[in-house]
Amino acid sequence: MAAAVYLAREKLDFLVISKNIGGQTIWSAEVGNYLGFQLIPGDELVKKFKEHVASYNVSVQEGEEVESVEKLDKGFKVTTDKGEYEALSVLVATGERHRKLNVPGEEDFYGKGVTYCATCDAPLFDGKDVAVVGGGNSAMEAALFVAKYSPKIYILNINPELEGDDMLIERIKRDKKIEVIPNAETQEIMGDKFVTSLKYDQKGETKEIKVNGVFIEIGLIPETDFIDIVKKDEWKQIEVDKNNMTDVEGIWAAGDVTDVTEKQIAIAVGEGSKAAIQLIKYVDKLK
Amino acid sequence: MAAAVYLAREKLDFLVISKNIGGQTIWSAEVGNYLGFQLIPGDELVKKFKEHVASYNVSVQEGEEVESVEKLDKGFKVTTDKGEYEALSVLVATGERHRKLNVPGEEDFYGKGVTYCATCDAPLFDGKDVAVVGGGNSAMEAALFVAKYSPKIYILNINPELEGDDMLIERIKRDKKIEVIPNAETQEIMGDKFVTSLKYDQKGETKEIKVNGVFIEIGLIPETDFIDIVKKDEWKQIEVDKNNMTDVEGIWAAGDVTDVTEKQIAIAVGEGSKAAIQLIKYVDKLK
Repeated sequence: MAAAVYLAREKLDFLVISKNIGGQTIWSAEVGNYLGFQLIPGDELVKKFKEHVASYNVSVQEGEEVESVEKLDKGFKVTTDKGEYEALSVLVATGERHRKLNVPGEEDFYGKGVTYCATCDAPLFDGKDVAVVGGGNSAMEAALFVAKYSPKIYILNINPELEGDDMLIERIKRDKKIEVIPNAETQEIMGDKFVTSLKYDQKGETKEIKVNGVFIEIGLIPETDFIDIVKKDEWKQIEVDKNNMTDVEGIWAAGDVTDVTEKQIAIAVGEGSKAAIQLIKYVDKLK
Repeated sequence: MAAAVYLAREKLDFLVISKNIGGQTIWSAEVGNYLGFQLIPGDELVKKFKEHVASYNVSVQEGEEVESVEKLDKGFKVTTDKGEYEALSVLVATGERHRKLNVPGEEDFYGKGVTYCATCDAPLFDGKDVAVVGGGNSAMEAALFVAKYSPKIYILNINPELEGDDMLIERIKRDKKIEVIPNAETQEIMGDKFVTSLKYDQKGETKEIKVNGVFIEIGLIPETDFIDIVKKDEWKQIEVDKNNMTDVEGIWAAGDVTDVTEKQIAIAVGEGSKAAIQLIKYVDKLK
């Protein structure tokens, strides 16, 4: 959407195609780190973003999913579930989706104690006990971050040992507020209006812990399956340079779908703006 | 300010030292490309940014100027015009300042008709003819803003064509009060108590126009004189990698002061956020 604002202001002829505008932001209970908005529910922020885009004459095709991007002699062919388009340039900003646990309660309590974003939502759990599900770097980082607010943090690790940076593992071990539960397979998230407990299996035995928050940190999957012609890293993220260029001339990528180190709204907005300006210059030159 | 929000949310012990918070944004008549705010005067946007920072317990020392940054055995010493500080890590986000013409009269008539800030000073030229020196976006924005007050605005462009947003170029062309003078190299600013005219060279011929105001909009110089220990490029911009790291471990840089290709509010906010998260991880590891 940041890119769309830039492209619209430059009067480019373009189309926004999106399966679901708003992406992960729309599911954030509260966003506190997008400069200018002190605390705003994710869906309200997305509404403001959409209104900003709509204040220009932009064609937004929501609910349409891109299936492939192919190179033509000049430009690209974009095929969706609804049609085909030709474009001189393509900007990929499809983000990531959270890997889900697929357990009962996960969906029902989403935004009511279940979250996939520690940085966004940790302050909401001030003084409350929480569980972090996962056993890698992002689970450990989430636990350490949440430890600034929560008196007790359980890390539910499906494996016998934490895996990731030694330094993170050491810090987890040193932190008295964090308890690592190994070989724990989450079974169910329970509650009434809000999460109250979590059930897990440990070597065949079912156990329950009382928590008001469940941070699910078992990984993210970049939405890049539809595009094969650009270089991706081992995690399927699109590789970009400092100017958000991919290895294919005419294709840019921005935000969480790329190998940018941090996945944040403010960063995605910045990267999208940067990519848009580069794309504008590129298309201007082709004229 | 974006970085300050991230650092504050992570409860880091830090200090914001700034000569003038808001930087160039505060002088923007209207900001239309920071996602979430459709059209907002620059000073209002800065107010929102400041309020966001102030919503956390952040020490902001405004009006204080950093004079040097030195490396210590552990961390850095930051010397300002008011004191000395030690820090484990430094984030440079000092932006850019306006470039000067370096012609006779420019300094003598500064504040007496010569200005670098259209938004601040345009109302002083109500009913008076003015010149805007420059040929890019900021020159065009200045001219359009001054057109609210001045009956006649000359844009003295050293190049044959204006360069920048198509939307701005069109608006300039449509505005009957604005006359663009191409290939014009400003030679001298003249007057008595106040500016009365400006002399320029056009293809070898010296010409003079009667104006009471001169708005100089010829570009920007990164504010990096106070720091010698990081690598800078030929334009004195601090070189950063994709993660906003400088070549000195523990020093980050973000926004217009760096070699980031585009100088935009949204991009500076993104870069500041990115730098802050890296810095947080770095400082956490030192503990």
